[in-house]
Amino acid sequence: MHAFRSHTCAALNKDHAGQNVRLAGWVHRVRDHGGVLFIDLRDHYGITQVLCDGDSPAFAALEKVRAEWVIRIDGTVKLRAPDLVNPKIPTGEIEVYVRDLEVLGAVEGDLPLPVFGEQDYPEETRLTYRFLDLRREGLHQNMMLRSNVVRSLRNRMWDAGFNEYQTPIITASSPEGARDFLVPSRLHPGKFYALPQAPQQFKQLIMVAGFDRYFQIAPCFRDEDPRADRSPTDFYQLDVEMSFVEQEDVFAAVQPVIQGLFEEFGNGRKVDADWPRIAYRDAMLWYGSDKPDLRNPIKMADVSEHFRGSGFAIFAKLLETEGTEIRAIPAPTGGSRKFCDRMNAFAQANGLPGMGYIFWRPKGAEAKERKWTEAVRFALFGETPSAAARLLTEGMKEAEDAKIAEQIAELLKLGEVERARNLMNGAFGDIEPAGPIAKALGPERTEAIRVQMGLGEGDAVFFLGGKAEQFEAVAGRARNEIGRELGLTETDTFRFCWIVDFPMYEKDDEGKIDFSHNPFSMPQGGMEALMGDPLEVLGYQYDLACNGYELVSGAIRNHKLDIMFKAFELAGYPPEEVEKRFGGMVKAFRYGAPPHGGCAAGIDRIVMLLADTANIREVIMFPMNQQASDLMMGAPSEPTNEQLRELGLRVIPKE
Amino acid sequence: MHAFRSHTCAALNKDHAGQNVRLAGWVHRVRDHGGVLFIDLRDHYGITQVLCDGDSPAFAALEKVRAEWVIRIDGTVKLRAPDLVNPKIPTGEIEVYVRDLEVLGAVEGDLPLPVFGEQDYPEETRLTYRFLDLRREGLHQNMMLRSNVVRSLRNRMWDAGFNEYQTPIITASSPEGARDFLVPSRLHPGKFYALPQAPQQFKQLIMVAGFDRYFQIAPCFRDEDPRADRSPTDFYQLDVEMSFVEQEDVFAAVQPVIQGLFEEFGNGRKVDADWPRIAYRDAMLWYGSDKPDLRNPIKMADVSEHFRGSGFAIFAKLLETEGTEIRAIPAPTGGSRKFCDRMNAFAQANGLPGMGYIFWRPKGAEAKERKWTEAVRFALFGETPSAAARLLTEGMKEAEDAKIAEQIAELLKLGEVERARNLMNGAFGDIEPAGPIAKALGPERTEAIRVQMGLGEGDAVFFLGGKAEQFEAVAGRARNEIGRELGLTETDTFRFCWIVDFPMYEKDDEGKIDFSHNPFSMPQGGMEALMGDPLEVLGYQYDLACNGYELVSGAIRNHKLDIMFKAFELAGYPPEEVEKRFGGMVKAFRYGAPPHGGCAAGIDRIVMLLADTANIREVIMFPMNQQASDLMMGAPSEPTNEQLRELGLRVIPKE
Repeated sequence: MHAFRSHTCAALNKDHAGQNVRLAGWVHRVRDHGGVLFIDLRDHYGITQVLCDGDSPAFAALEKVRAEWVIRIDGTVKLRAPDLVNPKIPTGEIEVYVRDLEVLGAVEGDLPLPVFGEQDYPEETRLTYRFLDLRREGLHQNMMLRSNVVRSLRNRMWDAGFNEYQTPIITASSPEGARDFLVPSRLHPGKFYALPQAPQQFKQLIMVAGFDRYFQIAPCFRDEDPRADRSPTDFYQLDVEMSFVEQEDVFAAVQPVIQGLFEEFGNGRKVDADWPRIAYRDAMLWYGSDKPDLRNPIKMADVSEHFRGSGFAIFAKLLETEGTEIRAIPAPTGGSRKFCDRMNAFAQANGLPGMGYIFWRPKGAEAKERKWTEAVRFALFGETPSAAARLLTEGMKEAEDAKIAEQIAELLKLGEVERARNLMNGAFGDIEPAGPIAKALGPERTEAIRVQMGLGEGDAVFFLGGKAEQFEAVAGRARNEIGRELGLTETDTFRFCWIVDFPMYEKDDEGKIDFSHNPFSMPQGGMEALMGDPLEVLGYQYDLACNGYELVSGAIRNHKLDIMFKAFELAGYPPEEVEKRFGGMVKAFRYGAPPHGGCAAGIDRIVMLLADTANIREVIMFPMNQQASDLMMGAPSEPTNEQLRELGLRVIPKE
Repeated sequence: MHAFRSHTCAALNKDHAGQNVRLAGWVHRVRDHGGVLFIDLRDHYGITQVLCDGDSPAFAALEKVRAEWVIRIDGTVKLRAPDLVNPKIPTGEIEVYVRDLEVLGAVEGDLPLPVFGEQDYPEETRLTYRFLDLRREGLHQNMMLRSNVVRSLRNRMWDAGFNEYQTPIITASSPEGARDFLVPSRLHPGKFYALPQAPQQFKQLIMVAGFDRYFQIAPCFRDEDPRADRSPTDFYQLDVEMSFVEQEDVFAAVQPVIQGLFEEFGNGRKVDADWPRIAYRDAMLWYGSDKPDLRNPIKMADVSEHFRGSGFAIFAKLLETEGTEIRAIPAPTGGSRKFCDRMNAFAQANGLPGMGYIFWRPKGAEAKERKWTEAVRFALFGETPSAAARLLTEGMKEAEDAKIAEQIAELLKLGEVERARNLMNGAFGDIEPAGPIAKALGPERTEAIRVQMGLGEGDAVFFLGGKAEQFEAVAGRARNEIGRELGLTETDTFRFCWIVDFPMYEKDDEGKIDFSHNPFSMPQGGMEALMGDPLEVLGYQYDLACNGYELVSGAIRNHKLDIMFKAFELAGYPPEEVEKRFGGMVKAFRYGAPPHGGCAAGIDRIVMLLADTANIREVIMFPMNQQASDLMMGAPSEPTNEQLRELGLRVIPKE
């Protein structure tokens, strides 16, 4: 028999009854039932119940065993009594009567962290004893998920005709916007290597070198300040590059991979197959974000025209300044003063003076409001028309016409909110706007806003005014908040969209033109476009957003040196500077560069979404803490004098 | 039609005749056949011949095109005349008549390195213009091989029930024998991270964390002095670890993966399925190496007894010193003075005083010597017995007995060299030893050596004397040289063996006991063994050798803290030192560690063997040169003052 096990702890079932077996694993839990010891024995694969009484020669030894000891047992498989069968685990029909025991690895002293049970522990303890935390079911599952996700991504890329190539990790500094980690060179004292922030230049060089479809599950290194959803040192991306492609070719290559992955690991959550393309400027207008959460149906709009010269003096005055606008956030089913006031407070807590609002209430029909909310929810969440109709019918005793209710539900299912609303209003009678803005604005303008936003009874709309860049981020967060609070945002669904047409340039705080994203992207319209207003130039640059997160970012590259030099010149970099910073790539582009483009997908982020966690440390085997320290291994640490001497370095004492 | 191509450059064949197609790629070669331009258009997938004459609107533009420009062409597929078909390429039946041309990426100036043709160029040029060198067929194929090898390794590991997990790259210093690359921490000025020399501690922690079968294609970082077959910065290994296993379990997991890989990519070369286990001490005795090349049938032996007190005074005297021995290297078919003198010179060139020898020649039958050589070769190389017999028959006219020849060949096929030799000697008549040692030794001892080594007519034997550690390495090289020179070493074959039973300790130059290999290996015999002579302790440590290279190295780990502390104590490390250096692992072993073991396989080395190259830079996409500089990207380079300030470092000026 094998020295440690004949079966894993997930392998035995009633077919093995009567067999002598050998198992090894961790003692998950010990229970003493009056002279009979029960132990849940756990390994990577599962749990098997083993037991022992005083008749067994192993009893005395087994009595000493404690939680998390590693033991090897020999014993006989027995069927459990029918009422003791545990249908939740594959080994639930049997138990193993122990005759021999060997302690393979004991525990010294108390466990700093129990493995059985999932109660919360301070992160410092969890990271210091990561090897114990990882034994817990939740983290164990996350690690398996990550491992399987990476495997699946790889296979999908291979199946799509991509090859994986490894690019250097100890390499040249390649400014990508974040700080490099540096590595001092011993053979060249005083000089430093850098760890790649991404294999950007290398993957482009691979294209110039004549390879057609590259990918890599690539470690990336950015010395960034800590954040909960970001690793402060290394992280992984699915890095992709293709030759002889346009933007839509990249989309066509990436969508099946990501969509397929989410379908495979979504665990029953819906994966929307419709991935709309949304221009960056529309995304900002509609969603207040370049990574919109499309599970939330709320779409903002510019309603400046209704406020210009209106009786609502604050906005009317505001709009006299150039570059200002009034943005409306519709809030279907949000039409109560309580809710509107809460959202106003939210805006104030987020640094704005507040958020004006209008809401529409039925004339004297409070109960109907609630029913409408429910009906909208039902329609949005895809209940059958008849279920929605039933609900409406119950709430519409006043209308006393189930036929109309059914029609409303049908319209809602088709997304015809306004027509449904009109029918509803017809059935329920008139509605009235409420809130201070409505009063100042007057009935005509208020009604125009209602019609533009497609709102009706029980709905609200919020307003933000000023320069877009000053309120857009808060508007985006308010949209999220409204969607969540009102239950409008779908759950258990992944919704994707491509954000396209990013501007190439922006003005920095000092009014200087700078690249807004990746300087290596091809400007739309090429050289000609660069001759006009830089702020109008769009790049062939794109992101993939999912549920409010940026999953993928990429671009069609600028492979033409003259256009590249011009593009950098506009941002204030003379050719010498470009040659100096990106020498390898510039040199390569002189010797026959193909058109190419690609993208990179954040692996950690994808796994976080699939594992439904907001903390990146839940999806990394051995993460740093937020101060970029490894508490388990004790990194970083003081170098030896010998090491510093070899590297030709001196540490400057702290002042 | 797609902007750049309707087909790749490997896709078109006679079925496409008459179609209008679009191709894009690099201009591999331009030929002007009197008014007709022929271009070999190349992409990642293949080559298509395109052509153009003055009737085409694209002619003028195509005339300007030069080698390595990237172009897009539109044209019509035409069948080639039967006598112009090129059967070597998939597109060899057709060519494309060009009607439209777009230059996608031109070449500025002269190419520093031509792509067409594979002539040699200085390595500095090749590395500076790596993107051009990679376009060449040889390197392109090597990169594809590497990519496919890594993929296959991964799939094989997954299929064997392993999961891949990523371990940290920016982490703690973990002394493994080589120097660490250090990474200064910005958030903790004066402290440094290290890049892992191998994920050794992490993979063991993964086992302690309850995961059962781990693997990773892991980047490893060692700041080592340059060598041709070693990357001076980062390299990759297939890292493996398993819980609840013994040595043979690891072998059983690894052999199918590696053997299958070599069968898949061996390109027709034979892959031996018999992987013998050879004890380290036997390997050194028999082959003078712990990574023997078993394609070479030569097996050395200790022949001290024949020299002790003999008339060959040098060796007789040498043997009076303790710890000395005389080692014999048999050289079947090497029995000529010319060859023996050449090998003697080889030993002298390798720092030894020389290599004595004896060889046996037939009494007056020069021609037979050659025939025996051929017969031995045939038998060793697996010819059919009848083919070997035919050869022997031809050479054995004097014996005039084909029956005997056939018997000899049969015996050789069975490896019964000595019996074959005896038969041969019977048939041919007597032989005589030659060389100065034979004379000094006398006929009886000489014959005893011949019998021990299984040699006969036409063979030689070489002798090395002294302390084994002083001559063993040269003996090993001499064995290689003899095998190659005499054509005894197989070609087109991969032969593997596990080297086992490595000693745990050795004496260093100052006579101090130190670990000879991995300090984390479990000593055979456990605690008890550590109570005896350290130099006698063997570890559960093993290497896999193939054709003279170490491909894999591994061990069953010491997971018992008391045995680990004792093992380190013997090497002079007090417990505090062990806790300090390997804190993470020591801590983990206190909380329930399973027995575990594993290994690591060198990916670069495997690909080098399969690609049949001795230069590691031929199998890495973007390698450093031997001074650890990246000539293409310009690394390492001077840091900015800002960077040094942030890291709290100062560069010490060179003296």
